[in-house]
Amino acid sequence: MEPIKNLPRLCRTLGYEFSNMDLLTQALTHRSAANKHNERLEFLGDSILSIVISDALYHQFPKATEGDLSRMRATLVRGDTLTLIAKEFKLGDYLYLGPGELKSGGFRRESILADAVEAIIGAIYLDANLDVCRDLLLNWYQARLQEIKPGISQKDPKTLLQEHLQGFKKPLPDYQVINIEGEAHDQTFTVECRVDGLSQSTIGVASSRRKAEQLAAAQVLELLKK
Amino acid sequence: MEPIKNLPRLCRTLGYEFSNMDLLTQALTHRSAANKHNERLEFLGDSILSIVISDALYHQFPKATEGDLSRMRATLVRGDTLTLIAKEFKLGDYLYLGPGELKSGGFRRESILADAVEAIIGAIYLDANLDVCRDLLLNWYQARLQEIKPGISQKDPKTLLQEHLQGFKKPLPDYQVINIEGEAHDQTFTVECRVDGLSQSTIGVASSRRKAEQLAAAQVLELLKK
Repeated sequence: MEPIKNLPRLCRTLGYEFSNMDLLTQALTHRSAANKHNERLEFLGDSILSIVISDALYHQFPKATEGDLSRMRATLVRGDTLTLIAKEFKLGDYLYLGPGELKSGGFRRESILADAVEAIIGAIYLDANLDVCRDLLLNWYQARLQEIKPGISQKDPKTLLQEHLQGFKKPLPDYQVINIEGEAHDQTFTVECRVDGLSQSTIGVASSRRKAEQLAAAQVLELLKK
Repeated sequence: MEPIKNLPRLCRTLGYEFSNMDLLTQALTHRSAANKHNERLEFLGDSILSIVISDALYHQFPKATEGDLSRMRATLVRGDTLTLIAKEFKLGDYLYLGPGELKSGGFRRESILADAVEAIIGAIYLDANLDVCRDLLLNWYQARLQEIKPGISQKDPKTLLQEHLQGFKKPLPDYQVINIEGEAHDQTFTVECRVDGLSQSTIGVASSRRKAEQLAAAQVLELLKK
C-alpha cells in the first residue's frame, strides 16, 4: 500500500497552490507507476524553463555573447542542476514510482528527480500561466542566477563527468586512444571512453587527444542523462 | 553602398508592425555585417519558438507520447524548416551581410536564413510580448501544424542527409564500416561517414551497421548546422 504523500506540504515548499491537484499528482508520477504519468508534462516544462531562463539571462547580461548566454543557460537547465533543485524540495519523498524504480539509485534516480522538476513546471503552467511559472522559477533560481557569470566556471565535459562519478564514489572514467591517423601536422585521434556500470562505451574523434577525450566524455554525459 | 531594404514590406509579410524598427534591423544583421548583430536575439527566439510549438503540440495531440511530441517539435523547429520559412518570407532580400557572406551559398546560407528567423522571433518578443509571438508563430506554422502527425514521417538522419545533399546537387554520402568487434550475437559496428566538401568525417558506433550509419549521418547533420 502506497503511503499517502503530504502534497500540501510540497505545495508550500514549491511556493505554489494548485487549483487542480491532479496535475501535481501527475507531475510526481513516474511512468513505472501509472499510465497517467509525467512525461508529457516534462515535455512542456522543459520549454518553459528554457524561455524563462533565456529571458532572465538576456536581460541580466546585456553585453554577453550568444555563446556565453547559451553556456549559462545549459548550466542552469541541465539535469545535474534540476536534480539539486529536486533535492532541495525533498522531491524524492513525494514521487510515485513503480516497484522496480523504488530501489533504483545513482544516475537513474537522479534523472527521475530532474524529470519530475520539469514536469512540475509543466503542471504549474497548465494550472496557471507562464507569468506565474516565471515568478516561481526566478525564485527557485534566485541564488543560481546571482552566482552565474559569463565566460567562467562553465566546466568542460571531462571535469563534469569526473565530478559526477566521484559523487557516486565510482571509479574514474577510462580513456584509451584507439586510433591515430594522418601525418604529424594533421592527425586525427580516436579516443574511447569507458565508465564503470555503463555497458556502452563512447568514441570521440578530433584533431587532438584532449579534444577527442572531451567529445567522448560529453557523449557519456548524454548517455547518463537518459 | 548597401541598397536600402524595404522593411515595411517585410513587416507586412511577417504580419507584424514593429514599434522599434531597430530591433528588426538588428534581427536581420548577420555578425559579419556589424557589431550589433542578431545572435543574442536568436538565442531568445530559439526558446520562444520552442515553448510556442511545444504548447501547440501538447494541446493538439492529447494522447501523443512525450517521444512523439519531441520528434514532432524537432521536425518543426529544426534548421531545414526555419530555412523554408525564411524563403517563404524572401528573407534573403532583407539580410545585412558582410562582404564575405554575401556570396556564400549552400549550407552556410541556409543556416544564416534559419538563424535570422529565430532572431526575428526574439525581436518581436522584445518589441511586444509572448502572446503576440504565439499568435504570429501559429499563423506562420498553420499549415505545418495541420499536416504533422505523431509517429509518422519523422524522417531518419540518413534520409534527411541524402535529401539535403541532393537539394544542393552534391554526391551522396559515403558510409564505410571501419571496424566490427565482438562475437556474432553481440557485435559492435563502427561506421565512418564522409560527405563531399566537409573536411571532417564522422563516426557512428552501434549494435548494427544500419544504426551506426544513422548515428554517423546524424553527426554530419549537426556539423552542417554549424
